[in-house]
Amino acid sequence: MTHDRQRLCVVGTGLIGCSFALALKNAGFKGHIVGSARKQATLDEALRRDIIDSADTDPAKAVENADLVLVSVPMLAVDNVLEKIAPALKPGAILTDAGSVKGSFVASARQLIPDLANLVPGHPIAGRERSGVEATDATLYRNKRVILTPLPETASSAVEQVSALWKMTGALVECLDIETHDRVLAATSHLPHLLAFGLVDMLATRQENEEIFRYAAGGFRDFTRIASGDPVMWRDICMTNTAAISDALDDLQSNLSRLKGLLDNQDADALEQVFLRAKTARDKRTASLE
Amino acid sequence: MTHDRQRLCVVGTGLIGCSFALALKNAGFKGHIVGSARKQATLDEALRRDIIDSADTDPAKAVENADLVLVSVPMLAVDNVLEKIAPALKPGAILTDAGSVKGSFVASARQLIPDLANLVPGHPIAGRERSGVEATDATLYRNKRVILTPLPETASSAVEQVSALWKMTGALVECLDIETHDRVLAATSHLPHLLAFGLVDMLATRQENEEIFRYAAGGFRDFTRIASGDPVMWRDICMTNTAAISDALDDLQSNLSRLKGLLDNQDADALEQVFLRAKTARDKRTASLE
Repeated sequence: MTHDRQRLCVVGTGLIGCSFALALKNAGFKGHIVGSARKQATLDEALRRDIIDSADTDPAKAVENADLVLVSVPMLAVDNVLEKIAPALKPGAILTDAGSVKGSFVASARQLIPDLANLVPGHPIAGRERSGVEATDATLYRNKRVILTPLPETASSAVEQVSALWKMTGALVECLDIETHDRVLAATSHLPHLLAFGLVDMLATRQENEEIFRYAAGGFRDFTRIASGDPVMWRDICMTNTAAISDALDDLQSNLSRLKGLLDNQDADALEQVFLRAKTARDKRTASLE
Repeated sequence: MTHDRQRLCVVGTGLIGCSFALALKNAGFKGHIVGSARKQATLDEALRRDIIDSADTDPAKAVENADLVLVSVPMLAVDNVLEKIAPALKPGAILTDAGSVKGSFVASARQLIPDLANLVPGHPIAGRERSGVEATDATLYRNKRVILTPLPETASSAVEQVSALWKMTGALVECLDIETHDRVLAATSHLPHLLAFGLVDMLATRQENEEIFRYAAGGFRDFTRIASGDPVMWRDICMTNTAAISDALDDLQSNLSRLKGLLDNQDADALEQVFLRAKTARDKRTASLE
């Protein structure tokens, strides 16, 4: 496949969009990349770093003539962006995204985007606590999974083109249905973030909070790292995947209540069994992640 | 201070005890170190690695003539060890420990150890998911805090001697009262471990558990690392610091219920505030840990 004359547009030049663009360039992508962001300063920085080739704060202008558009903005900004770009998209232009919640993106797209054959919802399972163009990392997606959730209407050629670009960044591309994606990500990513935010917030308001952070060790640092994530991004994820996250939180609350029962009843054997089962699952299942 | 003829005994030659011994030797400790463990194979491995100079599976024999004894065994094994060594301790021998729960150790010691002037309860805030003599790391305590919780009866000279040894390992030594130690550690270490075990256990029993672990990313790996801890050690901590952990878990459950309320009511502003407050506390308070 030749990308020599392909014109890409990245709407939202934060960590995710810029790392996508820079990874493509480093992998030999020879087309033109337009960036769009609300702030000119963000675009200037992306231009200065040669992450994008041209820029426009108006997404409608940025997507003009683009062959492929990646939307990577916080979930609650999706509607606004789609409204603006829908009338400006070139016929046949492929539209994809990088949002963490697929059901909500697809619901917006179904309302606002007429050409569903060229719509390829996607989600790269990669990120950092730091965000913004300054955090751009061309290796961010290397050996990371990217999940595409095509609609029944999506043309397979569109899926293939989006997939090919992600593979150029070093990512492992897979397809999943929308509902499974949102339920699985609620459990594996959204709930843990909510938990980490909740734990740190609870500890920070405790009477002995100075001592708590003073005597925190490495395990605590790792456990709470995800509580350093972007509050707006995680607020938007909570607002758009509410039911699945709420379900997962219910399950966890039940599990914690059961653990508290074992604790209060001093049921050493049952506690040890839970800990052993968790350790075994964690060691076995996440071995490939270490 | 000269350690040339000092005789140390480490009861429990796992990660904590062996790393203490090896760190001392690497720092120039010239005395003799006796190790004791239930299994001869463990002692043989510690001898082979020159972590200890001699060994005995019988703790009563191991502590004979020792000037200072460090007990580092799971919390529920403390009573048994103290019963055995109490009659064999040399008059004036200093007894210290490395247990994660101080109230329970002190309660046992008050029953079993006659010489409270030479009792210096302690807790190094350091560890690894891996355990055992194979995981020994002479740098484990470097720049890590060690909390000593002396009793009113403890002689300050005994505190100083224990403190001097920990400082030789590179640790930062501080004193804290027993109750504060147990409450703070419940919040900062014991509760997060219970949470991580509970979360992984809950996810492992979910219907889509294969997908959950398949699409887990770096954040999840960090968040659940502590669920790879030793089940027996954490069972014992739960059994001996039950009230403080149960309290902290109550607080967390209330906090999570409040978050679930915000989620279900789609209260975006309030959620963002919680996330921002947590991120700010985490970034500010754990900066020194990164």
